[in-house]
Amino acid sequence: MIDPKAFYTLSYGLYVVTSGDKNNGNGFVANSVFQVTSDPPRIAVSCNKKNHTYTLIEKHQVFALSVLSVDASRDIISDFGYKSGKDTNKLQGKAVIYGETGVPVFTTDCLSYMECKVVQRFDVGTHVIFIGELMHSQMLDDSKKALTYDYYREVYKAAAPENAPTYVEMPSAETSVKAATDYRSYKCTICGYTYEESDGDPTQGIEAGTLFSDLPHDWVCPICRTVKDDFKLI
Amino acid sequence: MIDPKAFYTLSYGLYVVTSGDKNNGNGFVANSVFQVTSDPPRIAVSCNKKNHTYTLIEKHQVFALSVLSVDASRDIISDFGYKSGKDTNKLQGKAVIYGETGVPVFTTDCLSYMECKVVQRFDVGTHVIFIGELMHSQMLDDSKKALTYDYYREVYKAAAPENAPTYVEMPSAETSVKAATDYRSYKCTICGYTYEESDGDPTQGIEAGTLFSDLPHDWVCPICRTVKDDFKLI
Repeated sequence: MIDPKAFYTLSYGLYVVTSGDKNNGNGFVANSVFQVTSDPPRIAVSCNKKNHTYTLIEKHQVFALSVLSVDASRDIISDFGYKSGKDTNKLQGKAVIYGETGVPVFTTDCLSYMECKVVQRFDVGTHVIFIGELMHSQMLDDSKKALTYDYYREVYKAAAPENAPTYVEMPSAETSVKAATDYRSYKCTICGYTYEESDGDPTQGIEAGTLFSDLPHDWVCPICRTVKDDFKLI
Repeated sequence: MIDPKAFYTLSYGLYVVTSGDKNNGNGFVANSVFQVTSDPPRIAVSCNKKNHTYTLIEKHQVFALSVLSVDASRDIISDFGYKSGKDTNKLQGKAVIYGETGVPVFTTDCLSYMECKVVQRFDVGTHVIFIGELMHSQMLDDSKKALTYDYYREVYKAAAPENAPTYVEMPSAETSVKAATDYRSYKCTICGYTYEESDGDPTQGIEAGTLFSDLPHDWVCPICRTVKDDFKLI
């Protein structure tokens, strides 16, 4: 028996992982990151083969890991987490520096970054785990705490993008509990965010108890900025 | 340039990873855990080759992952994190259930557990990353939050055990800043916990400002329970 709720008890940070060079760089939001060894210092990052950044890491054999701070702008998650680098240059117009290896490093709303050279790659099916040896690490802001996946889920009521290793399809039992209340829930089919009529959307001035049908036409998903039509009743 | 402080910005949960069978089981405290794929659901765990549980995972090709809750007893960290399974049977006297594969599962103060069959192993030097396919997962308590490494470090002022992938040797600059204050700091050579005279040890009724030399003779390290003699001035 597999209870998918158990997956939600695993704790993660949220990171922007970038790769490429000055001409062609990209990044994605990752949570599957851990230090694998301390001597030498090496970091593991799990990356979906469908990600554009995956192709760049395979080509350039380098990546940078930027640690998002707890107050990181939601636009960062929206841009790096729910858009594909195949369709858009995610680094355009963003504050980016270039590391010793030429890799672009995202620095906005980040506590620190680490620049790594790939020394091993392990195929695990839909994903590849890259092992990166640390070339350079730097603190950018030590006054704040790191953004965690748990905090992000709680505050933004969002689910992982479909390409993430932590994507979990919740069983319909969860849905029927919600349907039994007076208010309804609408799920964004792009990013998984759930609009709860009972809670409203304080981030866009929508009061608790506002029906989905009463949301203004220009209201967008607070996470991925998609339009109302992309929501479905759950 | 490598700034070791950047490592501390990575976020982790804290878990007890167990392996073996009814006759010979053991476990250790892990933080390097992430879900690698959702289809099929697989979990990665990094394990030091020196750990006794490592030998058991290699032999039995199964492991269980128990997610510690935020109020987990410190004895759990002390027993599973700072003692070797080679010297002591860590599961003796503990609440343990046995999974479908016969693997012992630790359940005290845990939110959930996952039972996994090893499907891949990747050698990364001092550690091995085991990829486990989920056989069974179960919630034990969904009323609490998970214990995070960050919370543990803040509340217990503890460092990682030396076998952990996240062990970081801090540079001496850190030390000299502390020595410049009126109060001194004493570090536990067993587990890395630091007794700050300025803070005392409220967990054992020791007031802030209590000098290390004034601590009662029966005072022990709040993390690993070792005696005063195992501390050194830093």
